[in-house]
Amino acid sequence: MTPDILEALRRECLPALETALHETLEYPPERIDAAAQMLHYHMGWEVHERPTGAPGKRTRPLLTLLCAHVAGGEWRAALPLAVAVELVHNFSLIHDDIQDESELRRGRPTLWALWGMAQAINAGDALFAHAHLAVQKAAALAPQARLEALSVLDKACLALTTGQHSDLAFESAERVDEEAYMEMVSGKTAALISAAAELGALAGGASVARRENFGAFGQALGLAYQVRDDILGIWGESSRTGKPAGADIRARKKTLPVVFGLQNSLELRTLYRSPAECAVDVPTAVRLLDECGARAAAESVEREQVELAFSELAAAGPAGEAGEALHALARQLLGRSI
Amino acid sequence: MTPDILEALRRECLPALETALHETLEYPPERIDAAAQMLHYHMGWEVHERPTGAPGKRTRPLLTLLCAHVAGGEWRAALPLAVAVELVHNFSLIHDDIQDESELRRGRPTLWALWGMAQAINAGDALFAHAHLAVQKAAALAPQARLEALSVLDKACLALTTGQHSDLAFESAERVDEEAYMEMVSGKTAALISAAAELGALAGGASVARRENFGAFGQALGLAYQVRDDILGIWGESSRTGKPAGADIRARKKTLPVVFGLQNSLELRTLYRSPAECAVDVPTAVRLLDECGARAAAESVEREQVELAFSELAAAGPAGEAGEALHALARQLLGRSI
Repeated sequence: MTPDILEALRRECLPALETALHETLEYPPERIDAAAQMLHYHMGWEVHERPTGAPGKRTRPLLTLLCAHVAGGEWRAALPLAVAVELVHNFSLIHDDIQDESELRRGRPTLWALWGMAQAINAGDALFAHAHLAVQKAAALAPQARLEALSVLDKACLALTTGQHSDLAFESAERVDEEAYMEMVSGKTAALISAAAELGALAGGASVARRENFGAFGQALGLAYQVRDDILGIWGESSRTGKPAGADIRARKKTLPVVFGLQNSLELRTLYRSPAECAVDVPTAVRLLDECGARAAAESVEREQVELAFSELAAAGPAGEAGEALHALARQLLGRSI
Repeated sequence: MTPDILEALRRECLPALETALHETLEYPPERIDAAAQMLHYHMGWEVHERPTGAPGKRTRPLLTLLCAHVAGGEWRAALPLAVAVELVHNFSLIHDDIQDESELRRGRPTLWALWGMAQAINAGDALFAHAHLAVQKAAALAPQARLEALSVLDKACLALTTGQHSDLAFESAERVDEEAYMEMVSGKTAALISAAAELGALAGGASVARRENFGAFGQALGLAYQVRDDILGIWGESSRTGKPAGADIRARKKTLPVVFGLQNSLELRTLYRSPAECAVDVPTAVRLLDECGARAAAESVEREQVELAFSELAAAGPAGEAGEALHALARQLLGRSI
């Protein structure tokens, strides 16, 4: 179970994925107009007068390709579905950046920061349509399978918007309970990772029952990933997370440790209830979270989801090198040390 | 060829359409949460503590249902496609209102004005996903037909975003030529009306060639409709258009008469080139547009598209009462007097 197998597959799959993404967004080629340039820029590709950026890690589509392989199919058959997953992810990033007023992504100005909010909303919408067109053209899949893939994808899109609605609503909520938090994250983060795994299984010809195992694996993987991200947002080193230390606390985000903290620490509640113009003192908040056991509680939820993820993966019955690579990918996703 | 037949069909179809729209946005019923309430409000339905609004005219889905009937099918078979067309239209309205900073629609505050921009972007995205799920569940259509319907729908969505990109870009352009204008309107207005007609024909079992006639009919109908809307925006009576007189001129919109005017009148170019803080004098602009024949030129384009629309409709071979109703609907859409 070495990550070398994962690296070998990554080196094989990622260039093909990038080519497929290019083909989807360059079709027909004579239409590389101003609207398409915005999409290319967001994807990290070279655009007239703007340097190439770091592309995304393409984790979700890689998950789709590996799951197709593990399920017994050819990973190339799943390429259009992997493209769709990555485009839906990027559509949601473009809209998220507007909603959060984030001016930077992967070290470059965000779309709305460069082209304005109106054009950026529209660019996100265009990626959404492109994602659907990619699935419809998946020649290796029978019409019924393509329809099922679209259904998996659109249920995930709907869940994304439900989760995003809650996340935005939580900003002004004084307190959020764990159940509401888990439901929010199920939509906002886990739904698309679950769809990525399930779509791979579908393209790989897995039975409906086995597809459900893959979907449940992705769902638990996504939840564990988000909870770990929440923990890193408070206790992680800024140099490793790429985010300024304490940013989540200053923004008063209702991440899982904070959800626990607000339930169990009167002092934290008082701190978070202070007027918006008073910055929350980060060291005080971290001390209060430590004192009430918020970190341990969040780590326990994370562990639960990790165990669930690996038990669903075992039920999906991955075998051979691709199975090892899938395990390694899940461990990489979950294992970021703090 | 009396509009009575249209009215009779309208009375038969619209309640079924409204029920189908409700079913789509209430599924599963226990999920009528805060996110779904925003969608219901936008659709004009009663929502907790907010009065019912005037619903949209539902022109596009009615076109889908009539085309299915005319093509030889049962209009009920086309209901899920009509739902999808109406939801895509409304998704684009929600995002348009944010992009144009419009605070009112159909006499009520827009979604972003009530819930903020972030939640409104997200609500539009949710309608987009719902539209796709509706088509996927169209039980009366074979999988291959559902896939073709989704392809027609998503090509229209992509064209919508391309047109919208141009429309937004035109705001800051000094001049726009007729070709660029027609391309913009082909996407922004005509693509979805074309898809509405073609989807009806598809559900009604029309051949591919005949489906193309329906699509071309919808495309020309949409272009003629938009050009007429442009003319009304300048010379129409405010009491009949529902828009304040001269609003398009004050906003310096590049509507078709203005496109012609800027090509042919040096004085109009000077007027439109004045700094943004200087309001354009509406009576002067209208006089200059009249003097350079801009109205006549736009009316000639409109006539051309009307003729094209009816010749494509004739080629599609509509017959019987439904054919008469479809003619009447097209005339109603085009015949708004100024």
